[in-house]
Amino acid sequence: MSGSLRAPFLAAANRERSHHTPVWFMRQAGRSLPEYRAARGEGSILHAIKRPELAAELTLQPVRRYGVDAAVLYSDIVVPAHAVGFGIDVAPGTGPVAPDPLRTAADLARLRPLELDDIAYVIDTCRLLVNELPAEVPLLAFAGAPFTVASYLIEGRPSRDYVNTKSLMHNNEPLWHSVLDRLADHAITFISAQLTTGARAFQLFDSWAGALSRADYDHFVLPHSRKVFTTLAERHPDAPGIHFGIGCGHLLESMYAAGPRVMGLDWRTPIDEARQRLGADTVVQGNLDPALVFAGSAPMLESAADILSRNAGNPGHIFNLGHGVMPTTDPGLLAQLVAYVHEHTSNPHGAGNG
Amino acid sequence: MSGSLRAPFLAAANRERSHHTPVWFMRQAGRSLPEYRAARGEGSILHAIKRPELAAELTLQPVRRYGVDAAVLYSDIVVPAHAVGFGIDVAPGTGPVAPDPLRTAADLARLRPLELDDIAYVIDTCRLLVNELPAEVPLLAFAGAPFTVASYLIEGRPSRDYVNTKSLMHNNEPLWHSVLDRLADHAITFISAQLTTGARAFQLFDSWAGALSRADYDHFVLPHSRKVFTTLAERHPDAPGIHFGIGCGHLLESMYAAGPRVMGLDWRTPIDEARQRLGADTVVQGNLDPALVFAGSAPMLESAADILSRNAGNPGHIFNLGHGVMPTTDPGLLAQLVAYVHEHTSNPHGAGNG
Repeated sequence: MSGSLRAPFLAAANRERSHHTPVWFMRQAGRSLPEYRAARGEGSILHAIKRPELAAELTLQPVRRYGVDAAVLYSDIVVPAHAVGFGIDVAPGTGPVAPDPLRTAADLARLRPLELDDIAYVIDTCRLLVNELPAEVPLLAFAGAPFTVASYLIEGRPSRDYVNTKSLMHNNEPLWHSVLDRLADHAITFISAQLTTGARAFQLFDSWAGALSRADYDHFVLPHSRKVFTTLAERHPDAPGIHFGIGCGHLLESMYAAGPRVMGLDWRTPIDEARQRLGADTVVQGNLDPALVFAGSAPMLESAADILSRNAGNPGHIFNLGHGVMPTTDPGLLAQLVAYVHEHTSNPHGAGNG
Repeated sequence: MSGSLRAPFLAAANRERSHHTPVWFMRQAGRSLPEYRAARGEGSILHAIKRPELAAELTLQPVRRYGVDAAVLYSDIVVPAHAVGFGIDVAPGTGPVAPDPLRTAADLARLRPLELDDIAYVIDTCRLLVNELPAEVPLLAFAGAPFTVASYLIEGRPSRDYVNTKSLMHNNEPLWHSVLDRLADHAITFISAQLTTGARAFQLFDSWAGALSRADYDHFVLPHSRKVFTTLAERHPDAPGIHFGIGCGHLLESMYAAGPRVMGLDWRTPIDEARQRLGADTVVQGNLDPALVFAGSAPMLESAADILSRNAGNPGHIFNLGHGVMPTTDPGLLAQLVAYVHEHTSNPHGAGNG
């Protein structure tokens, strides 16, 4: 990177100082933006993802609007399972639905390995984006972690209790590990294809892993998520990986042990507490409660100030919400939040160190 | 209690040994029991609660069927708000719904103080029950904690993000505290009426408090829940109180600081870890994942053995699930679980110490 401007996102992921603390938002490309609603149309997100020009435009909208420090590929965690023909779609207003859920070894046949040809449209979208994005705004790939994707395939729809998932896990451990191993390979192939085509970092979403006890996470899930991070670190050593889940405070040490460069936090785990538990040098991402953006400017900025204070100037901080942007969020508030974080972490000597 | 048999539940709540570790299940009176479905009929639970003979019968069914060590009054956390005419019902299959949610100071007028006359049917049910229950099976009262009840009144329906609740909390702090103070008084009046009529312990359900950061819990919620425990401890010093919420591991110290005798745990916080954090003498309740009962006998008993092992013979343990019984649970498995815990904690010298 000598001589060029180090992207703040990549600097923070490597605990190096840059212009400012980088900011991006999970689900920053979404219904909170009027330009998104105008371009997106109706129907399943999986159809929009298959149109590279549209997917690239939706990826770029929040970069233009907010001045965020990363572009997140417009995608969905069920894309690989959908692409291999498992039989899963995303129903608007509901979420992922699989009419014929995965319950027996025979169902595993519908979850064949992912080939690059299956996701040609994703690779095309990445190609369009790397030509459009400025050097200081890296493209992020993401994928669902094996547990969270498995929960959708097994439950057949969004769940609150994950009973079928836990039942399969405890009653048919060989099948469970076969499913998760296959899904780990899906995530590796999916993310690796994007990193090869120009994405420069990635996030693994284990959104619902918090439903598990730590003992169950360690035994049934951790080996598979570790395989994703380990394999990607070998193939793409310069691409930092982020690990994130909701309500995963009790799993923090285990999820960090899976091998991410960056630990994503929801709003329930304060940054300073996470570093006490994981080590003072830990790079963290987060973690403003999205409901406080909905609540308005004053609660939002008060919480942002608290987060920056808890970070205490540590260069290893990527600012984000603690969960995805809510569809009813006022985009003006998110723009204000980006400006606030940039202004209050501005470091005129931070450039050119990369 | 000299000379009489000390109820295992009350012994454990006071860290005294008795015959065995006591067991009860949250939502033990419910749809998992065929005799419940036969007696209950259709319609809102609030109507069934208003029929003392029926409510007493539904309370007694799981005591007969399972041999549990406590009877939990058949009730609902929205009974007090319903009883004062706020305008809230429980829709079968959905949960609490308030067509005109609490959003402004004017709505507070619909949440007048609770009078004993409002809950005459609850007191009648308690009277019936204390004549029926054996001395070793105490009747438990319960109420919703101020935050969780407020979330239903403010959202108007079950929520995943509590945005309206958090918005009111942060944007109108005086109204927030007025609402929670009123709801704390409701809980006190409701529980106190049952303790006066023969209930011998109580549980405060703050089921959804885990949606809050600890800073928000401490500032906006803790003072009100503490008022409930403190006032009830003054009025009914012999009645132990239990504090419980889902996904509240990050709030454990704060919820314990509210003043319960017993800390209820969901399956995400192992008993031994809770005692490390709260003190070795802490009386805990829990904490088997209800999904593992659904998963079948082997996973259920394996988890039960792990919980008893983590408790390591501490007399301050009340066995329970980590959340309510799921409606699809096989009642035969719950009976097996009660027998397993009783058998594996049997203490022939434990009786008569009370």
